[in-house]
Amino acid sequence: MGASDDATKLGYQVMKSLVEGGFPGRIFPVNPGRNEVWGLPAYAAVGEIPNKVDLAIMAVPARHVMRVLADCRTKRVPGALVITAGFKEIEDKSGGRLQEEIARFATDAGIAIIGPNTFGLLDVHGSLNASFTPELSRLEPGGIGFVSQSGGISHLVGFISMREHIGFSKVVGLGNRCNVEFSHLVDYLAEDPDTRVIALYIEGLDTPRTLIETCARLRGKKPVVVYKAGRSGASDKASQFHTGSLAGSYEIYRGAFRQARMLTVESAEELLDTAHVLATCPLPKGNAVAVLSGQAGLGMVASDVCAREGLALPPFSPLTRNRIEALLPPLSIRSNPVDLGPAWANPDAARGIVEAALEDTKVHSVILCMVYASVNRTAAHEMAKVIRNSARRKPVLTCFCAPPGLWEEDIAEVLESGGANFPTPDRAGRALGNLVRYSQIVNGKRIRRGRSRTSGNSPNGKKPAG
Amino acid sequence: MGASDDATKLGYQVMKSLVEGGFPGRIFPVNPGRNEVWGLPAYAAVGEIPNKVDLAIMAVPARHVMRVLADCRTKRVPGALVITAGFKEIEDKSGGRLQEEIARFATDAGIAIIGPNTFGLLDVHGSLNASFTPELSRLEPGGIGFVSQSGGISHLVGFISMREHIGFSKVVGLGNRCNVEFSHLVDYLAEDPDTRVIALYIEGLDTPRTLIETCARLRGKKPVVVYKAGRSGASDKASQFHTGSLAGSYEIYRGAFRQARMLTVESAEELLDTAHVLATCPLPKGNAVAVLSGQAGLGMVASDVCAREGLALPPFSPLTRNRIEALLPPLSIRSNPVDLGPAWANPDAARGIVEAALEDTKVHSVILCMVYASVNRTAAHEMAKVIRNSARRKPVLTCFCAPPGLWEEDIAEVLESGGANFPTPDRAGRALGNLVRYSQIVNGKRIRRGRSRTSGNSPNGKKPAG
Repeated sequence: MGASDDATKLGYQVMKSLVEGGFPGRIFPVNPGRNEVWGLPAYAAVGEIPNKVDLAIMAVPARHVMRVLADCRTKRVPGALVITAGFKEIEDKSGGRLQEEIARFATDAGIAIIGPNTFGLLDVHGSLNASFTPELSRLEPGGIGFVSQSGGISHLVGFISMREHIGFSKVVGLGNRCNVEFSHLVDYLAEDPDTRVIALYIEGLDTPRTLIETCARLRGKKPVVVYKAGRSGASDKASQFHTGSLAGSYEIYRGAFRQARMLTVESAEELLDTAHVLATCPLPKGNAVAVLSGQAGLGMVASDVCAREGLALPPFSPLTRNRIEALLPPLSIRSNPVDLGPAWANPDAARGIVEAALEDTKVHSVILCMVYASVNRTAAHEMAKVIRNSARRKPVLTCFCAPPGLWEEDIAEVLESGGANFPTPDRAGRALGNLVRYSQIVNGKRIRRGRSRTSGNSPNGKKPAG
Repeated sequence: MGASDDATKLGYQVMKSLVEGGFPGRIFPVNPGRNEVWGLPAYAAVGEIPNKVDLAIMAVPARHVMRVLADCRTKRVPGALVITAGFKEIEDKSGGRLQEEIARFATDAGIAIIGPNTFGLLDVHGSLNASFTPELSRLEPGGIGFVSQSGGISHLVGFISMREHIGFSKVVGLGNRCNVEFSHLVDYLAEDPDTRVIALYIEGLDTPRTLIETCARLRGKKPVVVYKAGRSGASDKASQFHTGSLAGSYEIYRGAFRQARMLTVESAEELLDTAHVLATCPLPKGNAVAVLSGQAGLGMVASDVCAREGLALPPFSPLTRNRIEALLPPLSIRSNPVDLGPAWANPDAARGIVEAALEDTKVHSVILCMVYASVNRTAAHEMAKVIRNSARRKPVLTCFCAPPGLWEEDIAEVLESGGANFPTPDRAGRALGNLVRYSQIVNGKRIRRGRSRTSGNSPNGKKPAG
């Protein structure tokens, strides 16, 4: 509804998303003034469509939504995506009243509404891009089901994921939440075979208890990771305007999330990274990590981050130590962390060292940092093989860095090998910390970070920074 | 020295870097077995080169370095870059002895040595890529002088900077530090007209006092930002192997850095971001920030980050408020943060709002977050104009997000307009926090972060995480 050939209209972008996104089902543009839109036969109203309609996508002005919804009831359309804005989020109280009216009508009619005031939704495996952003068709398929209260954050996370080749099952912009709430999506994604982990971006909730109870019922069946914004006074106020909900005290939310076995994170990037590692890696049996790196500096940084995350870098068993010493010349760090540097020119040695560390029973997971460029690019292929053989048994988190665009093929092979790749050692270490914390949550234990992440800069507000 | 046509040799990669990097000076390959290398006349020894030689680049085995250095003394070469490894960093004590011998000889001969055990150095404005990584020729020219004790971290930072179009003046890998130390480079970069900010990555120092005193003497003439690794036991031990220096207690370092007016950061990424904002933006007159965003979610997140960084989001003056209300319809957040969302379709309104916020005397800096895609890409051009007009007077930090590769042109225009762009609101907010902290350091004041960055996750080790 609102389909258009005029590029300045949202209804044009939505048609572009659907058509160019390669949706394999039928698309019926609805526009009373046109016979054809985007080269497809157009209909004056949803009632005139000869086929059964599964989803009504609305990009019409707010004042028309109620009428179009009535048509949908007559046509027995089970679901509607209302992209249109101008409801509960506006200053004028008429917006809130209109939204209430629509919610009541839709609920009576048995129509589930995503929105209003949303950028849309995507079923990435199903090639459905029902959003006003055609570029989101470039999202890669994967195991993350992402439900977000903000279109901006959805786009931010989506664009980062494209750059880093992290895949999604579904991406849903909830908007103002008319009669479909976070809890409904969690229930749905918990049963969705494409979804391995549920990621939530929350600003404010009207009925937080429902979500908490829904997540608690999962009992670790699928991980739920949540990033909650609206912690400061200014952003809390902003939340009310944005999607009509007060953000509320973060501390109260955090305690409730923890009780429901939800994993909380501190930024959109950490939400993506944590969902990525949970969707990709098996759960580790403990917090002992082996840090291996092709360049000693990256290994040092990763070791620092692991310590901050409460992870342990145990010494290797005598057997592992012997295996590594047989492969590395006596001019490098052979304990934990291990500097693979001197094995650069010898992919077999590098492979043997990674395998030795992975097979050490004292090691629960591995972080492997490598910088690739002309001088050593051929070694990436061997490393992908090691990861492919090992990443099913223990988590292998890689930080493979390369000049942008240059070695995409080599890095892509690593990504496809089953490991989880991160652009910096910090992001890899933090993701592993969260993976370990989640395994503890599932097992009813708790671990804590060893030191504040910001121990260098006023960790508790007592020390002045700088 | 060690120049080669054999792609498996470091001396091949170095020649490739020099030649393809477009160095405008003369390059003399030295290789006793060849008449020509990389199509250039080759010399058997440095003594046979007819011209004056400014820099000897050594990619020969460790055992030859002493002999080659003697040739350099005879030839009166003032500086040497020793890429060769196998000195103080190796387990065998002969490495340390060889390095001491070389250091003594070079210092007696008046030869300044960068290295040994380094990836190299770059003068980006001068198109000199004297490193074993040809891809580093893609570094963009800019105001950051970066001195690093790790090749891996230099590459990591360099690759991120390429992706984000952040420019460097010089990049120097110090390696084992034979007779050129951090303090020498700080002295040099302090006088270098291309360098606006000095960024240091430090693992361990033999003579920390010298660096501290050197930086203290700058008295804020140029900002010095430092990321110090080697904080945990494991990484401290690794440091000793890596470049032959114990990392030492981080707390002692941090206190000394602070007294010398150096700004400390917590990751390689934060080092880059902080150097970027210091090289690009004027210093703010205070900690009051206006947060403007094209999508409310990004503004909320940025507001949270600003609060965490100890920044204030003051209410606007009545004049500013009136100006903004005249431009925005009554369906959006018009206080601070401001949601520009409804002004999407109206670049003039968006421009007017940003200008109003910038002209408010209560506002010391602006964070502007925008997601761009098909639906609004044309608005980026107008925004670049606003920033070009304003970014000289007050810091304007942008978080302009776009699908990778798609709108590079539009974003590039913003980058060239004088603002500092960051990929996430978190990185923008953290960079602004550091910019404000630096302005306080220069003015002899101190501000502190409002809350720990990890208030959600065991900020002081007391609360269990998860």
